[in-house]
Amino acid sequence: MNKRLQELTSWLQQETIDFAFVTAPENVFYFSGFLSDPHERLLGIAVFPNQEPFMICPALDVTDAKASGWEYEIIGCSDTDNPWEVLEKQVKKRTNEIQTIAVEKEHMNIERYELLLQHFNGAKFVAAEAKLRQLRLIKDEKEKEILKKAAEFADFAVQVGVNEIKEGKTELDIIAAIEYELKKKGISEMSFSTMVLTGTNAASPHGNPGLTKIKKGDLVLFDLGVVYEGYCSDITRTVAYDHTNDDQEKIYNIVLQAEEEAIKAVKPGITAKELDMIARNIISDAGYGDYFPHRLGHGLGIGVHEYPSITNTNELLIQEGMVFTIEPGIYVPNVVGVRIEDDVFVTKDGVEILTAYPKSLQIVK
Amino acid sequence: MNKRLQELTSWLQQETIDFAFVTAPENVFYFSGFLSDPHERLLGIAVFPNQEPFMICPALDVTDAKASGWEYEIIGCSDTDNPWEVLEKQVKKRTNEIQTIAVEKEHMNIERYELLLQHFNGAKFVAAEAKLRQLRLIKDEKEKEILKKAAEFADFAVQVGVNEIKEGKTELDIIAAIEYELKKKGISEMSFSTMVLTGTNAASPHGNPGLTKIKKGDLVLFDLGVVYEGYCSDITRTVAYDHTNDDQEKIYNIVLQAEEEAIKAVKPGITAKELDMIARNIISDAGYGDYFPHRLGHGLGIGVHEYPSITNTNELLIQEGMVFTIEPGIYVPNVVGVRIEDDVFVTKDGVEILTAYPKSLQIVK
Repeated sequence: MNKRLQELTSWLQQETIDFAFVTAPENVFYFSGFLSDPHERLLGIAVFPNQEPFMICPALDVTDAKASGWEYEIIGCSDTDNPWEVLEKQVKKRTNEIQTIAVEKEHMNIERYELLLQHFNGAKFVAAEAKLRQLRLIKDEKEKEILKKAAEFADFAVQVGVNEIKEGKTELDIIAAIEYELKKKGISEMSFSTMVLTGTNAASPHGNPGLTKIKKGDLVLFDLGVVYEGYCSDITRTVAYDHTNDDQEKIYNIVLQAEEEAIKAVKPGITAKELDMIARNIISDAGYGDYFPHRLGHGLGIGVHEYPSITNTNELLIQEGMVFTIEPGIYVPNVVGVRIEDDVFVTKDGVEILTAYPKSLQIVK
Repeated sequence: MNKRLQELTSWLQQETIDFAFVTAPENVFYFSGFLSDPHERLLGIAVFPNQEPFMICPALDVTDAKASGWEYEIIGCSDTDNPWEVLEKQVKKRTNEIQTIAVEKEHMNIERYELLLQHFNGAKFVAAEAKLRQLRLIKDEKEKEILKKAAEFADFAVQVGVNEIKEGKTELDIIAAIEYELKKKGISEMSFSTMVLTGTNAASPHGNPGLTKIKKGDLVLFDLGVVYEGYCSDITRTVAYDHTNDDQEKIYNIVLQAEEEAIKAVKPGITAKELDMIARNIISDAGYGDYFPHRLGHGLGIGVHEYPSITNTNELLIQEGMVFTIEPGIYVPNVVGVRIEDDVFVTKDGVEILTAYPKSLQIVK
């Protein structure tokens, strides 16, 4: 049994939970290697404290699920089967007293919950999220290598975007060019909607790219990431077109200092809060505290926003194997927006930065 | 009060439901004009049988929600508010006896359900889906115009893709070119992952585009759609590169005949099943019945797959104002795949086809 399943199994034993039914596609992927969106059909894995787990999936996916490396039983349901009856039967083959079931309460909908209640009448349902988050929080060597590769594609994407900057090009033109070149390299999914914002558009951390044309003197902000082998990257760079003014340079360098100092401080034993505050204090001391309205960063893995959350209230201790973003920004409404973001992996005694696109202020001519 | 809200209100009166709490972003958009994904924050509209509705949304979205045209109260919740307490207070200001609440049981997760149960202790929860689907099933004139425009962009996208076909281009190259040109026209979201499949790859209705190169003699299948003003289009065309063989032509023309005959039959009063069977019989009579393994089509609107479902078991009467796809296909594994798909709007006495890209077998030289 792989280490991930073992840890889930130990938790079920400790908490005396009779089984866990995991259905969020990213968690199914985490435990089984099978990445699939079953839409309205049922895909899940049932994990027990003292029995072998099994997977239930749409009949047409059985071959792919096997090929993904899942070593245990796979039960395919055709569209005429009742997958909840199948689930009940398979669970009861393994264990008969079902008092407590762990499910992802943030993922499972009421309709499915009511069906589970019907089939496991009287059972108590507990949330599996906290445990699943804790497992996914620490990345192993293989995950790190995949995340690094995803980060390299993000670096490449920024380079493509920067090369594309020209008078009159729109934000959407640049995005189109980036995704075009990525697709040619076999990357068909971005980890979120690619953001290219120019001039004052970048001054909203919530901006939507559109048909605004880039003009000389603009700062252009890129925020993007790719999905590679099921894992996400996330990078932000802000570059200048043609020339800069003093305010832009000043703000850029404050953000850069905040970002670099926070990264330097990353190591096991520091808290998320301390990291956030290192960057936040630099920005506040420079007089821009009100213009940095978001957290310093977020975890990264199969999800583009996962645990840990790097906020100024999170006392969580940073541990080796965590992967998260460091992304301070300053947004002065209608004036300027700068954000710089890297993905970092926590090592035994410090940090490895996964994204590598240069960070000193680049002026594109 | 707009017609949509009026109809929901009437339903609440008839069913003696004390209020509906609508949270699926596409349903919120349908009633309010406000299209937004609030991620983990709470966005919803509460609709009552005899009181004015209200919207609850993240504080940072209040301005956008107002601008979208919602005429009733909007309550913004900051990240330090408890939105469920806010909801309870606002509901109880309007009505005090809460016995029955309608929610989207396929959308709402258990975590939120348990919070609602806490705040409206003892209430019974009923599913709102059937009613919401029924409302969205019939499109008004404005929706039709938007869907037509979305279909025009889909036609354009196919044209771009066809123009891009050349020896050695990969499926992902073609997709990149399509999305590039769409982005330049301001279309930044596809209604689903664009599919370009060449040669035997098209013989799987589940195919994933990749780095396969197009070669002479291939049939190339395009299945794509755009999101335009919140509404989706969906088109499929299959074209030949350089030359065809007799089998390809034969299969193409069977699919084309099936598609065109089904479209001709669309009018109010026919059933979904009859439509499906018109196409299915043509394909079966030609000896390819086993190679048409999916339904004839699906509804289209704010969602890319919505009601009605055009299957060979659905006795639903087709009505004026429905919009759905007609998309028969023949897939002979490892040999050939052909699908042809249009979006149709049901008129008073027939059909208007929204997609317009030509359908006779095109041989790209």
